[in-house]
Amino acid sequence: MARSYRQKSCPVARSLDIIGERWTILLLRDLFLQGPRRFQDFQESLAGVAPNTLSARLKAMEEHGLIARRVYSEHPPRLEYHLTEKGKSLGPVLKALREWGRHHS
Amino acid sequence: MARSYRQKSCPVARSLDIIGERWTILLLRDLFLQGPRRFQDFQESLAGVAPNTLSARLKAMEEHGLIARRVYSEHPPRLEYHLTEKGKSLGPVLKALREWGRHHS
Repeated sequence: MARSYRQKSCPVARSLDIIGERWTILLLRDLFLQGPRRFQDFQESLAGVAPNTLSARLKAMEEHGLIARRVYSEHPPRLEYHLTEKGKSLGPVLKALREWGRHHS
Repeated sequence: MARSYRQKSCPVARSLDIIGERWTILLLRDLFLQGPRRFQDFQESLAGVAPNTLSARLKAMEEHGLIARRVYSEHPPRLEYHLTEKGKSLGPVLKALREWGRHHS
């Protein structure tokens, strides 16, 4: 699923190995803009994402330390995802994409 | 091929509609770092990209006005690709990805 560019000496390629898969940056955007989100919040925001794709992206983001899960209800069990400090450190990437999109697309 | 996120009100999604496909950002990187490049230069730099994928990415980038082609030899005919001003305006996006990759991956 997570295909590496195998260019470990290039910091751009290394970043894309972590956040370059389809949907990942929009998941980060939602977490930056909206705060902690549940699985179904992402599904509603990202019309078109398949549930198994969404699961895979969230799992990879958690494995890379960008997001973490929190149980906020035991009965019924409910989970929400939030940005870690490492996830928040992607702010400048999101900001650069936003600024370019505002002015050039 | 170029799948839109269909979130035209979001500038991040609009940017990704243009540069979010696999390989596109690494093609931009090569043009930023190396200057004008030929098709085979990209093939050598991006081991693993299929020729038809590379063609499709370059075509889309040209259609979006990020790059332009120049004939630099008539016999035999040779083409090279270079960044346009619009392409160069993606510098901050590439820089943010580079900085994050240097410090967090």
